[in-house]
Amino acid sequence: MPEYLPPNLDIIRPILWDSRGLRLLDQRLLPWREKYLRLRTPREVKKAIKDMVVRGAPAIGITGAIGLVLGAEKIKARSKRDFLAKLKRIGESLKKARPTAVNLSWAIDRLLQKANEADVSQDEIVEVLRAEALKIWEEDIEANKAMGRLGAELIPDEATILTHCNAGALATGGYGTAIGVIRAAHEAGKKIKVLADETRPWLQGARLTAWELKKVDIPVEVIPDVAAGFLMAQGKIQVIVVGADRIAVNGDVANKIGTYSLAVLAKENNIPFYVAAPLSTIDLATPGGQEIPIEWRDPKEVLCCAKRRIAPKGVSALNPAFDITPSPYISAIITEKSVVRAPYTKGLKSLFEV
Amino acid sequence: MPEYLPPNLDIIRPILWDSRGLRLLDQRLLPWREKYLRLRTPREVKKAIKDMVVRGAPAIGITGAIGLVLGAEKIKARSKRDFLAKLKRIGESLKKARPTAVNLSWAIDRLLQKANEADVSQDEIVEVLRAEALKIWEEDIEANKAMGRLGAELIPDEATILTHCNAGALATGGYGTAIGVIRAAHEAGKKIKVLADETRPWLQGARLTAWELKKVDIPVEVIPDVAAGFLMAQGKIQVIVVGADRIAVNGDVANKIGTYSLAVLAKENNIPFYVAAPLSTIDLATPGGQEIPIEWRDPKEVLCCAKRRIAPKGVSALNPAFDITPSPYISAIITEKSVVRAPYTKGLKSLFEV
Repeated sequence: MPEYLPPNLDIIRPILWDSRGLRLLDQRLLPWREKYLRLRTPREVKKAIKDMVVRGAPAIGITGAIGLVLGAEKIKARSKRDFLAKLKRIGESLKKARPTAVNLSWAIDRLLQKANEADVSQDEIVEVLRAEALKIWEEDIEANKAMGRLGAELIPDEATILTHCNAGALATGGYGTAIGVIRAAHEAGKKIKVLADETRPWLQGARLTAWELKKVDIPVEVIPDVAAGFLMAQGKIQVIVVGADRIAVNGDVANKIGTYSLAVLAKENNIPFYVAAPLSTIDLATPGGQEIPIEWRDPKEVLCCAKRRIAPKGVSALNPAFDITPSPYISAIITEKSVVRAPYTKGLKSLFEV
Repeated sequence: MPEYLPPNLDIIRPILWDSRGLRLLDQRLLPWREKYLRLRTPREVKKAIKDMVVRGAPAIGITGAIGLVLGAEKIKARSKRDFLAKLKRIGESLKKARPTAVNLSWAIDRLLQKANEADVSQDEIVEVLRAEALKIWEEDIEANKAMGRLGAELIPDEATILTHCNAGALATGGYGTAIGVIRAAHEAGKKIKVLADETRPWLQGARLTAWELKKVDIPVEVIPDVAAGFLMAQGKIQVIVVGADRIAVNGDVANKIGTYSLAVLAKENNIPFYVAAPLSTIDLATPGGQEIPIEWRDPKEVLCCAKRRIAPKGVSALNPAFDITPSPYISAIITEKSVVRAPYTKGLKSLFEV
């Protein structure tokens, strides 16, 4: 059975693709079970993204691109023009799965543009799309490795690194962004250890980051989200590295809720605060953090923990899933091309110049 | 059956006392079940404090005092001197139940001093101790009411108040410290609402504070700990009020882990940050925050949530239960006597002058 996989696939595989469709590691079940769900249609893919079967900005982008290909495979069209119109509708629907991460619309738009510009017949568009989706996937892994190498130079030997949420292989095409920097530092022989704050309500830190780091034998301990500030003040943390869901032109960063709090505490305690993200996460069409849409999710995610209700009945909750870290709190943004420091608008724009 | 209760008992009753012994509302079971445990000996009381059946600094103090009385009732002594020596041993043991909250040793020492100074026979000491324990309990509730009235003046009408952990009736003899300020503001007719951050790992915010506020009909919503900073930056929080486990002479405050983070974020966002605590929480023998012992608890509390393991096997966790908020981050300390502002050393010492 033909498999559609990039040549540089990681050992940790949240996404698998073959001729029967997409298989996603159900990240809601980690660390208790490693189970893949089989998805065959854009509608199923959209729901999987919404339900956080797969999560993490670059992973969502790759998954959305594959979902578009699955939809393209089933399109019945009278003409190439009709085909492209139907393809666009599928793409626009997939883009709505979740609003904050820019990588989803970036990946969909890149495939749609490729399909529109390709000088091929209607029958060949699926091949073009499939190749482009795989290219996005492969590039993402290469970007993470480059990002890792650049970021590792910023990590002192024997550092304890704090990370938030999961910006690892599970959140990307492979290797990871923030966790890619951690892995690269470890591979370079630096004796580092990691503190993963658990990241309620979805517990990506405790469930996913701890699971990944254990798989690649990097020492990790989980801390409750409330403990990060204290540990910084006590000198137990030398550096903080996080990922991003969207970076505005001015360097403001949208990332998992709680990131802003860590950045403020880091600045107060003179601890370097780095954001690791590929160019596909930088959105030149977004001027600043206030323009980034913040997704709010079902309050039940906060009212429950590990499937058990923890708050009294009749009490509600607030569940903003992301927050904005204004650029003055960010020591540097590590990308696959270079490490960018303030002033960010100039530095980020220059990454896109040919 | 004779009951030993203060006349001003709250409707929320974590502690009940009668001639058969102590009854503690098992706060580990809230909000799912309201169940009282019966405790008859100092050893059982010490374990209940250690296991957090009862928690909250003033409540721990009152419970410890009652535990000492239960022990006194069973002492067999040859003389008054022998009785007092045995009493002291029981008291010293109880003091070790948990190290951070000063109210426990304060209450035990107050009872021991009373017993040593009382001009009564050996047979009458138990009565003296029982009366003193009840006096501590009653004074605590009165202090909270006074604190509430003073603190309520600092709360703007229509404010959204953020509170951390549980500093309510469940944490005290009744009414609460931080929650006492909230209840007083509400009773004064101010249209306030509360955001309770859930306060992992023990979830005192989601399980206890939300439960209490619902019982007294004050609007409350639960937020994950990670969301407080974002909501502050968004202008959704006008004031923060928390309790304390120990206040040093210089105004540094030890409180539930996460307090320091909120204080830093509050300062960064120009939001008033108040600590509400009775004089029994101020420790003139502790010069500054660095001298306050921080209790670290079993990592399992972090590795699990609602009794379910959330981190992979083989991964450990850090579980500091308290942190230190240096006084520069505190807008004011609300006590039963007055609202104290910087410079704190002068202000706090003056509270104890007759």
